[in-house]
Formats: sequence, C-alpha cells, structure tokens
Amino acid sequence: MIKIGGNIIDDELLLTAFLKKFAVIKSKKILVHGGGKLATRMAEKLGLPQKMIEGRRITDAETLKIVTMVYAGYINKNIVAQLQSMQCNAIGITGADGNSILSHTREKAGIDYGFAGDIDSVNSACFIQLLLNEQTPVVAPITHNGKNQLLNTNADTIAQEIAKSLSSFFEVVLVYSFEKSGVLKDVENENSVIEKLHLGYYRELKETEKIFAGMIPKLDNAFKAIEAGVNKVIIGKGQELDQLITGKSGTTISHE
Amino acid sequence: MIKIGGNIIDDELLLTAFLKKFAVIKSKKILVHGGGKLATRMAEKLGLPQKMIEGRRITDAETLKIVTMVYAGYINKNIVAQLQSMQCNAIGITGADGNSILSHTREKAGIDYGFAGDIDSVNSACFIQLLLNEQTPVVAPITHNGKNQLLNTNADTIAQEIAKSLSSFFEVVLVYSFEKSGVLKDVENENSVIEKLHLGYYRELKETEKIFAGMIPKLDNAFKAIEAGVNKVIIGKGQELDQLITGKSGTTISHE
Repeated sequence: MIKIGGNIIDDELLLTAFLKKFAVIKSKKILVHGGGKLATRMAEKLGLPQKMIEGRRITDAETLKIVTMVYAGYINKNIVAQLQSMQCNAIGITGADGNSILSHTREKAGIDYGFAGDIDSVNSACFIQLLLNEQTPVVAPITHNGKNQLLNTNADTIAQEIAKSLSSFFEVVLVYSFEKSGVLKDVENENSVIEKLHLGYYRELKETEKIFAGMIPKLDNAFKAIEAGVNKVIIGKGQELDQLITGKSGTTISHE
Repeated sequence: MIKIGGNIIDDELLLTAFLKKFAVIKSKKILVHGGGKLATRMAEKLGLPQKMIEGRRITDAETLKIVTMVYAGYINKNIVAQLQSMQCNAIGITGADGNSILSHTREKAGIDYGFAGDIDSVNSACFIQLLLNEQTPVVAPITHNGKNQLLNTNADTIAQEIAKSLSSFFEVVLVYSFEKSGVLKDVENENSVIEKLHLGYYRELKETEKIFAGMIPKLDNAFKAIEAGVNKVIIGKGQELDQLITGKSGTTISHE
C-alpha cells in the first residue's frame, strides 16, 4: 500500500522514475495518489481562488468539480497509462467506483469544509477482487457518501484506511512517500533519519520535543494503523521507493 | 451494452431519469458514455477553441488533457456516484484501466486528428472479470495505445467494439440511445419509426434514398456488429430506455 506525495506528482520526471520502481514491485500492490498543485493551478485559470484551512482544501461545489476532473481524470488516468506502458496492470478508481470507500461530509465546529469527506468504511472485498484479478488499483483522493455525493478526501487517510481494512486478509506494509528522507531526529539535518521507530521510542521523542511538529499527526496515524493490524509503516523519500520497501531507506515504524 | 448520447449527458434531469432506468436492468450490463458539450465549454473557458472535422474533435495535447479531465473525471465519476446511490455497483473506467481497450492514433490522408484513437482490440477478459464480480463497467471515451498515450475515442465505436468482443461469451444486445425515437422512414416525422430492420430491407431503403444520410454510418456499424455476432442492435430515445431494451420502442436491428 503505497501513498505518493504531491511533490512527485507535480514533477513529470520524478513521477515516471517513481512509477518505474512501483511497476516492478512483485507483491500485490495498491497506489494512492494525492492531487499536487495542478488542481490549484486549474482553479486559478478558471478564476476560482482556493482556500485552505489546516492544510485541507475548502471544497465548494465548483472546486469539487475541478478536483474530480484533475484527480480522478487527469492525474489518475495519466498514472494508469504510464503504469500500463510499464507492464503493470493498473486500474484507476475513486471511492465511488465499486463503492470502494464510503465517507461522510466533514463536520468540525466553526469550519465549513464544504464537500470534504471523512472516511466511514472501506469495501475490502472490492480491493481484494481487483488484486485477485491481477489488477493494481490506483486510487484518486475522491470518495462518496453512497447518496450521490462525491467528496474530496485526504490521500494519507485513504491509504491508511485501505491498509487497515486489508490487514485482516494480507500482510500489509504501508509506505508514505514524501519529500523528506524519513522521520528526522534533527529537522535541519537530512542525514538524521531515524531508521526504526516503535511506540516507546516515539513517546520519548515526543516528550523531549525532538520531533518536528508537522510529523506528529502523520506518526500518530502510523501508530494507529500498526495497532489496527498493519504490519509496518515506512516513511521516506519517493525517489528511494525501491529501498523504502526493503527497509534500507526511510523510517520503519512497527510494533516492536 | 448501452451507449448514452451527449444530449442526455448535457441535461441533468434527463441523465438522472436515464440512470434510474439503467440501474434496474437485471441482466449484466455496461454503459458507455460520450462527452457532451461540457468539454467544449471547459475548453472555451480555458481559452482553447475547439476544431471539429466530420464530427470528430481535433485533439491537440491541451484538448486531450481537457477531455481526459471532463470525460474520465467529471462525467464518469458523476455517473458512477449516481448509479451507486441507486444500488447499481458501477465502476468507471477508460480503455487504459485494466488495459481494457487498445487503440492507435488515427491516421487519415491530409487530416491530423491529433490524439484521437481508432480501436485495435478490446480486452474482453477485463470486462468479463468485472461483470463476474457483479460490477457494472461505466466506460469513458478515452483509450490508450499501451505506450503511455491516452487517446480520445468515439463512444459509439467503443460500445460497438466491446459488444462484438463480448458476443463470443454472452448474448449481447447493443443499445444506442440518442435524441430521435429510432430509425425514421421520414426524417421529418418522429412517428415514422421503423420497428424492425434487417439487411435486405436496409439495402432497399438505402437504394431508394429514404434513409437520413447521417444515420448511414451508424447503421452500417450496427450491421457490422450483427455480422460479428452481436444479437441485436437497438436504436432509439434514451428517455425510453426501459422500452428500448424490451423492443417496445426504437428500431431493432437483427439478422433476420
């Protein structure tokens, strides 16, 4: 279960290099992609300024239309076509397709996120069927509520929820690829990657305030995934995907 | 195998009414949709005037981006979300997804169609797997060449080629829904629908020049599909889908 970050999606050469490494992974695999900056650029071209609160896009009806077009249309199908050309039998879906991910409109006191979705459930049978058909799901960060409403949904959370739901059936490794080399002991130093992280050590690091604040929600989620049955969570640079999945690069988070 | 025309896609109420009738069809089914006018409107908003030759869009790189976004993103996912809300387990795909439809760039002396695709082959196994998984494929009119090139592809032809490829495995009925009530004896008179059409009668009608010229390529294709093993082709108004599939409305084209 591999989540690809926006920094790679926005860079054509990085994306192709990443997909080449993804395509040759032998085990059953799923790719979840975010949206990158293209949706924002498209919205600006169409004269719709974008609002963000706490890193989440405020999705009004017109913005939902744009993210559906850009994420589920342009980005998803371009990734699928590239993977197919690399002999990886990709099939691009959103959470609406095959009713794969159900969500509800996010509600939080005082903030109207618009058409943003928080996940209720993952239809593991849908993913298992595709995987057993030797297909590789490529998931765009759009889900639905089952009542004809598409919802813009955080790609990190999608990756985590699919990983959790599949962990009863498979040994699941969840890889978050992003712009840094892993969880850093010293945020200023790319060479200070923590190779292995378990809960005790993480608590220690949090108490001594050594962890970069922006990493905390990601890591809290990673430990929730581990508790829910995911085998390992690996966080690191997308460019090193081949080394990430073997644990030679990045930070590996596990139970012990 | 049902093809839905642009006139229905462009009208929200017509589309919902159509999908309600589609959702309750009991047998295994596939929906192929065209693009409607939304891609043209989006292109205009973005300042890209659209060129058509013989009813086919000239697809330059920017236009391909837009049709991929609009057809495979916006229209496809909105149809899927609607069908899911009607308890129809839709899964939206393009020809790139699951390598379902391979095509090549159209070449015709003197005309550069750009990124427009003519179909080489349909991966019937991909459609059969989805159908056996109790999923209803919803196909956007985008295919690929297997070498990382998406191609804009005529939806009528996609419907026909899928129908032909599945006719070795299933009894296939191919329905073309469009704005007229069927094949008309008198193009001015909506009540002059020809109920049943077979090859002998069609040749007769063509010779006496009674058939509307615009229908001829559609009908030639319909007879090609019949010759290739498709059971019936039915042409008629999308609003009457329930009556089309039972043969109570529209024109039914068959071997005899």
